[in-house]
Amino acid sequence: MIDPYNDEYFMKQALLEAKTAFEKDEVPVGCVIVLNKIIIARTHNLTERLTDFTAHAEMQAFTSATEFIDNKYLDKCTLYVTLEPCVMCAGASFWTRIGKIVYGASDERRGYKRLTENVLHPTTEVISGILAEECKDLMISFFRKKR
Amino acid sequence: MIDPYNDEYFMKQALLEAKTAFEKDEVPVGCVIVLNKIIIARTHNLTERLTDFTAHAEMQAFTSATEFIDNKYLDKCTLYVTLEPCVMCAGASFWTRIGKIVYGASDERRGYKRLTENVLHPTTEVISGILAEECKDLMISFFRKKR
Repeated sequence: MIDPYNDEYFMKQALLEAKTAFEKDEVPVGCVIVLNKIIIARTHNLTERLTDFTAHAEMQAFTSATEFIDNKYLDKCTLYVTLEPCVMCAGASFWTRIGKIVYGASDERRGYKRLTENVLHPTTEVISGILAEECKDLMISFFRKKR
Repeated sequence: MIDPYNDEYFMKQALLEAKTAFEKDEVPVGCVIVLNKIIIARTHNLTERLTDFTAHAEMQAFTSATEFIDNKYLDKCTLYVTLEPCVMCAGASFWTRIGKIVYGASDERRGYKRLTENVLHPTTEVISGILAEECKDLMISFFRKKR
């Protein structure tokens, strides 16, 4: 039987968040954090609204998820994010020891892999390319609109 | 004439913050952000209190300073921090394009230099070792107390 709550399902939820960011004229990145197939945090980029670069989707999600489970560590959780995390967010994920990161589109310019994959915690599993085209298309549409 | 508002002066202010963290049983790291010789943000590590790794002193200071000047960019500001920033905080400083980072003690285990110095924005100047002994001694006292 196919599990309806698979990686694509949760990435679609992250995409909904990214679309909300788009509507707010924010760089359209969204994410959800999942524990035992349940979404415990859902956030989108708010750097413009908050005039604050630390308001990347992932950073807010880490804060929200750790508050929800009242534990600094997210080792049993999975982060679904539409774009490859930047170094700041990857560095934050290290501290949380998050169990898995699933991302959509790669970020050749600002993704953490540009520097080194060693940013992540050694126990964090990574899956990339889930709904990559949809995630990337949203970014392209956004920057085209901005020009 | 000696400028009383030199790097040591501001690092002492960061140390006062670190000591406040120590008193709260938090890893004793403190920082201030300075613009035109005026402190516009002063924070200390609150990861235990907030059950949130994103509550490193520097992250809070970036949020506080950008809010204060109502600008996402801190290119005219200097961050004084008692410990070499971790990758998350260095990655955040990249986005803010902070003008200068002055830190006290090096962090051989978790400092951003362990991975690569390219984490920082290319325009960010770095000075290290200001009041390094005091900054380090505070960390050593904290972890000795924890054992």
